[in-house]
This record gives sequence, structure tokens and C-alpha cells, in this order.
Amino acid sequence: MTLPAQVAQQNDDPVTETLYQQVQHFYARQMQLLDEGQIAAWADTFTVDGVFAADAQPEPVAGRAAIRTAAQAARDALDAKAIRRRHWLGMVDVRPDGPDQVRVVSYALVLEIPRGGPATVHVHTTCDDVLVRRGGAWRVKHRQVRRDDLAGGAAR
Amino acid sequence: MTLPAQVAQQNDDPVTETLYQQVQHFYARQMQLLDEGQIAAWADTFTVDGVFAADAQPEPVAGRAAIRTAAQAARDALDAKAIRRRHWLGMVDVRPDGPDQVRVVSYALVLEIPRGGPATVHVHTTCDDVLVRRGGAWRVKHRQVRRDDLAGGAAR
Amino acid sequence: MTLPAQVAQQNDDPVTETLYQQVQHFYARQMQLLDEGQIAAWADTFTVDGVFAADAQPEPVAGRAAIRTAAQAARDALDAKAIRRRHWLGMVDVRPDGPDQVRVVSYALVLEIPRGGPATVHVHTTCDDVLVRRGGAWRVKHRQVRRDDLAGGAAR
Repeated sequence: MTLPAQVAQQNDDPVTETLYQQVQHFYARQMQLLDEGQIAAWADTFTVDGVFAADAQPEPVAGRAAIRTAAQAARDALDAKAIRRRHWLGMVDVRPDGPDQVRVVSYALVLEIPRGGPATVHVHTTCDDVLVRRGGAWRVKHRQVRRDDLAGGAAR
Repeated sequence: MTLPAQVAQQNDDPVTETLYQQVQHFYARQMQLLDEGQIAAWADTFTVDGVFAADAQPEPVAGRAAIRTAAQAARDALDAKAIRRRHWLGMVDVRPDGPDQVRVVSYALVLEIPRGGPATVHVHTTCDDVLVRRGGAWRVKHRQVRRDDLAGGAAR
Repeated sequence: MTLPAQVAQQNDDPVTETLYQQVQHFYARQMQLLDEGQIAAWADTFTVDGVFAADAQPEPVAGRAAIRTAAQAARDALDAKAIRRRHWLGMVDVRPDGPDQVRVVSYALVLEIPRGGPATVHVHTTCDDVLVRRGGAWRVKHRQVRRDDLAGGAAR
């Protein structure tokens, strides 16, 4: 067998099926909250000590309160230009890391739609998350976003 | 806990897992039927009294027969220009509303591909559905499409 | 009932739920392997006798070794131009064909991101797969890709 271990095991893990749906649903809700401007509710999908890191930013944003503040500022700037952003997060690869923690590597397609159009692709990124379950709900403990148009990343 | 109630509950509802897959699969089939020009079969994924409302249209289309007629006209217009449309429906947020009814809020990315290319993003919309289960199959009872390039919507 | 048989049955097949998640996860991993340049591991997601056919190619590529060679050549050409490709595979319609074989018809959205940007839609295709389960893991036995910008296809 030359197939990678994680692929070979994917049908043997009884946890994966339930987990996969929970993660997909979590991301759908999370992105809708952000895109609909419900920034406080979106920030609450991070843990209190959650970290949001992006290779396009000078340094990681640490803590839910700081994440909320940064997202609100980004939102206000878009609103001032009458531009909507839509985040599609997909191609979700879930890697269980204990009963209440998973690592999830996914793609994010970010679209921008100015009032009057047209809709365009803004950027494409990867999203590398550590999710933890707290009180029955998944939250982001650590997020690393990498833009595909920047020079870094494992593949370059 | 400041997390919204629906997020906090998402892992506690045993119905959601099965439902989520059914809804995803339903949309995959439904969009493929539309994009492949199987308009009568696509219209049958609405209830007989189904309603298709879109903020880009002057008024809702009511009833499966009228929905089929409108979709066929749209299809014929595209065929005359040798343009294919592809509908991606994703970021699916499912909210159970009884055993045989769900509300689903999702994103729709509509691409247009003229013969010879290139493929482009046509519009981005949200899709707010009421699905009902009839005879073991989900159908759309009410659909509200909102284009992100238009001025309306809750977020503006 | 004028609803197509496959839609009517979709909620009656207890296999579908588990299968659907496995197929989604399989595609997420498979596309990430390709896009991250792990070509040998990606080729291993095909059966040893797997076939990759595309209407944009003169003839099908037959066998895992030939598939790997062709993919590596395509990758090298993109690397030389500092272009990243990202494959989104979605709108997945799974049709069970025995306990260890499924046919899957889906959409593929291929994005290209040159270093420095911007990200653009490269092509949109359909993907018609026969997947088989071998040793607990799904693999592609036959793949037929059809580009929507080309004149062929059932709908034209």
C-alpha cells in the first residue's frame, strides 16, 4: 500500500462521519455571521483565547475581543465602499485530534460584490484551523490563513 | 455564554446530521437538473404550490407549472446565446422546523460559461428556502433569492 | 408522482448518508494533494488500472503510473509560471452501484492564482467518476472530465 495513511484510514474511523457534518455546518454558520455583519456573534465562534493569524497581516490577532475589534474595522471599511464580501469555505479535510479537538485544513474563496456589481473573486486562501469543542459547540482556537497569491506557503 | 443559541445547540441535535446530508444531496441534484436543462424534472423538486421569489424579479412565481415555464424560458434564452450556467449552492445552514420541514439559508454562486470561454462569475446570491418532506423526498415550498449586487437585504 | 426515481429514493437509502460524507472527504483530500503538489500521493487515489479521461485531451490517460506522470508534467509547467491552481469539487451527486462501487457526478471549479494575483476562474467542468472501495479506502477507477466551455456534452 502506497496510499497515505490518512486516506487509507478515512473509512475506518467511526467518529469522522458525525464530525465532518458538524464541521461543515459550523463553517456555514460562521461565514454567514461574518458576511451578514453579525461581528460580535462571529467573534464568539472563537475561543476567548483564540488566535487569528494571516500571512497578509503583520502579526496574529490574539483573543476574542481583539478579533472582534479587527473584524468590525474591516467590516466598516467595506460598508463605507458599499462592498459585500462572501466567504466560501470548502474542500474540508478534518483530522481528529482527540474527542474534543480537530485540525481542519480547507480552502476559502472570497468574493467581493460592489453595489451594482459585478461579483468578482477577491482572493483565494487556505485555512488551517484548530477547533475545540466547548459546552457542546465547536470554536476556533487557532486559525492560520494563507493567501495563494503571496509567495510563501509549503508548496512554493 | 454569549454564543448564539443556534450555534450552541448544533451538536446537541441528533436530527441535524442526517438532515444535513439529505439537504446537501438534494441541492446537488436540484442544481444539476437545472444546469443540464432537465427543466421539468427540476420543477418537480418544488411542491405543486411552491413559490420562487427573487429580488431581481418584479414578483414571485407561484406554482410548479409557472416555475417550470419561467425556467424553460430562461434556459431557451441562454441556449440561444450558447451560454451555460452553473449554480453552486453551498455554505448550507439548516434549521429544523418540525420533522418534515426545514428552513435552509445558503449561498449561491452562479457562473456563466459561453462556448469558447472564459468562465466568469455571473452573480452571487443568498438563497432562503423552506423545504418540506413529501413521500420521502424533500421539495422546495418557498424560495427567496437575493442578489448581493442589489441594494436591498438585511445587511445594508 | 412525476419526480425522478433517484430523487424520490434519496431519503430512503440508509447507505447514502455514510457514503456521502466519505465521498466528500475523499474529494477534499484528493484535490488538496493535487493542489499542494503531492503528485505521487494524489496518483495513489486512483486504482492501479485507473483511467483519467478529459474532453480537452486527445485521449484518456490509462494506469496510475501514466496518470502520475501526466499530472507531474502539468504541475511543473504551472510551477515554471509561478501559477497556483485550486480545484473545488462540489455539488456532489452520489449514486450507489453496489456495496463497494459508486458513480459520482459533480462540478469542478478550477481557479488560477499567479504570484501577486489576481485569482481568476480558469475553467468550469463536470466530473463523472466511478469510485471503488479497496482495503477500506475509496479510489477513482474511471474519471471523465468535461469542460463547460467546449462544444460537446449532453446539454448541447
